[in-house]
Amino acid sequence: MSQAQVSDDDIFGGHEGGKLSVSATRPITQARDLSIAYTPGVAKVSRAIAEDVTLAKRYTWTDRLVAVVSDGTAVLGLGDIGARASLPVMEGKSVLFKTFAGLDSIPLVLDTTDVDEIVETLVRLRPSFGAVNLEDVSAPRCFELEEKLKAALDCPVMHDDQHGTAIVVLAALRGANMVLDKSIAEQRVVISGAGAAGVACAKILQAAGAGDVTVLDSKGIIHSGRDNLNPVKEQLALTTNTTGLRGGLADALSGADVFIGLSSATIDESLLASMAPDSIVFALSNPDPEVHPDIAAKYASVVATGRSDFPNQINNVLAFPGVFRGALDAGARAITENMKLAAAEAIASVAADHLAPDHIVPSPLDPRVAVEVANAVAKAAAEDGVTAD
Amino acid sequence: MSQAQVSDDDIFGGHEGGKLSVSATRPITQARDLSIAYTPGVAKVSRAIAEDVTLAKRYTWTDRLVAVVSDGTAVLGLGDIGARASLPVMEGKSVLFKTFAGLDSIPLVLDTTDVDEIVETLVRLRPSFGAVNLEDVSAPRCFELEEKLKAALDCPVMHDDQHGTAIVVLAALRGANMVLDKSIAEQRVVISGAGAAGVACAKILQAAGAGDVTVLDSKGIIHSGRDNLNPVKEQLALTTNTTGLRGGLADALSGADVFIGLSSATIDESLLASMAPDSIVFALSNPDPEVHPDIAAKYASVVATGRSDFPNQINNVLAFPGVFRGALDAGARAITENMKLAAAEAIASVAADHLAPDHIVPSPLDPRVAVEVANAVAKAAAEDGVTAD
Repeated sequence: MSQAQVSDDDIFGGHEGGKLSVSATRPITQARDLSIAYTPGVAKVSRAIAEDVTLAKRYTWTDRLVAVVSDGTAVLGLGDIGARASLPVMEGKSVLFKTFAGLDSIPLVLDTTDVDEIVETLVRLRPSFGAVNLEDVSAPRCFELEEKLKAALDCPVMHDDQHGTAIVVLAALRGANMVLDKSIAEQRVVISGAGAAGVACAKILQAAGAGDVTVLDSKGIIHSGRDNLNPVKEQLALTTNTTGLRGGLADALSGADVFIGLSSATIDESLLASMAPDSIVFALSNPDPEVHPDIAAKYASVVATGRSDFPNQINNVLAFPGVFRGALDAGARAITENMKLAAAEAIASVAADHLAPDHIVPSPLDPRVAVEVANAVAKAAAEDGVTAD
Repeated sequence: MSQAQVSDDDIFGGHEGGKLSVSATRPITQARDLSIAYTPGVAKVSRAIAEDVTLAKRYTWTDRLVAVVSDGTAVLGLGDIGARASLPVMEGKSVLFKTFAGLDSIPLVLDTTDVDEIVETLVRLRPSFGAVNLEDVSAPRCFELEEKLKAALDCPVMHDDQHGTAIVVLAALRGANMVLDKSIAEQRVVISGAGAAGVACAKILQAAGAGDVTVLDSKGIIHSGRDNLNPVKEQLALTTNTTGLRGGLADALSGADVFIGLSSATIDESLLASMAPDSIVFALSNPDPEVHPDIAAKYASVVATGRSDFPNQINNVLAFPGVFRGALDAGARAITENMKLAAAEAIASVAADHLAPDHIVPSPLDPRVAVEVANAVAKAAAEDGVTAD
């Protein structure tokens, strides 16, 4: 479907009054309803939880409630536009949580960008929610924030811009490789962009068996000879680029099998021509892909973008609703690497029933995806021993 | 309706899975819906808010969103049972906000009881909501917390246990006085209890013209000769009890016109017998009134309780939904004393069409109440100049 069909009036009209609403699960129509939901009845439920705090999971909404948290520092491609301006994105996220996974969620946007203050705030609010979806936090702060939150909170925490993207990229690469009969272990993968998504993609592809991954930032190929690397990139330099490549994108792409674009840089088609035969191009920059998919298709056997108006849309919505649903269903205290890998496998399995070069991932609207992802994630949580049982 | 009809199974069954749900105001059924509510469409809305932050009121849900905030230190009559155990009460509050005023709200319960930490947390979350309903915070901390929050936040803030109760008590006294043809200016009012509700009741009754108010705490009548008063009670000692009463409840009630019970103390009927003719008794302790209303009716001309199974239920739900709705509708930056007085007048006006000794306040389920309260509060906000216009 063409995005041109959506006018500004459609968009702003679709946001009038906001996109979320809180309602009662049971209506209040008579005095008896008030006596149950509020005083005096509610006192018995509160007393029961005071005596056994685990009952909060059963008798409050927190067990299925995701806090969608942002400080507004890296909102879509718009950058640091602040908490208030990030709200429509967070409300949209909540809409998707409900639509695809039946999960309730509340946007919590913060007027501080201090990592420790954000952690402190969520620790204080811990009894109010069941999981945290971090969103649109700038790199490299997002890495530190996620790690500190995971250490401080005994509940699922996931920065979606990192891991949601990484999960769907892995699923899409699985799909493309099934179409082309390739193996991730034998491919040379080039990732352009070392922000939240690029770093997480490198990690999950390696965890899934990729043997040769090279990452570039705006200054070129990341290697351990560079002296302008932040700690996260220093770590990447140690774990990726095992052949010791140096230089820029042309040096990285020559002979490469897979290109994953996760920056806003454009890419010249001559570079795509230099890739290995049967190459795979994921041009995921939004709203403008690094290269138009029609151009990329001249050289690559499989092409994907982040856009809904081209085939093979790589969209986080394939991952995060099911990941959180599975984690909460399982009573997981954390989201492990295996849970993310299981999510990617589940997405790929839904696409597998009619794979084609222009169908390597399911449609974002396919209702089977979140169900399959949730089941796979819950199973992996149990296997990893991070569930409450 | 008798509360005996509600069983424990009814109550716990009515809380299974929690009482709240977040839903999308517009369904997502096709790719076009995703393009509007999420990427790429949402970017235009975020960019518009980044350029003009006042648009957040129009295009996000925060303009009608109340944060129901508690630290769980004074939950109903249960005391300091903690944040998690307070959640069913806060969810119930959110149910009532939606049912009676069409307002969305989210419970935010805090794992800290430090006043400054609570203020700091809500300041950081300020972009996430449009108003704060403080709930079930213990006295005297609640007074300091509310004052600091009002100073720190440019939005409506109200501690409902104080002002919601006070508004409805004033409305009920207006109703009783209309029935008995009495004037608040000529009555001697005795308030038993100097916690959140007692202190706020004394203040609003004085603001409404009460000339003779005496307040008691657990140690007896509050007067400036006592040396065991916290700062809030010291202030009360200066502004109430102008005749210099000393002693206990018997000393206070002898010849008094109005008794307002806001503590869990029981009261002997001989004390009621000592009150002036045509006396008014509000025995508001929950779930057990200070005196059974049938006993009180032997001596008093008008009797009210907090319970739904006796006539004249004085319940905060008559006030808070309409107060917040009116304040948010008006774009008010604060909730002023005049807005509270206007709310009480509006409640009394709804009851006025068929006043009787057993009908001095409207039913908590009367749908006219919140509408009238909201209109009156919005008008008072405009008169007080606290609106955005």
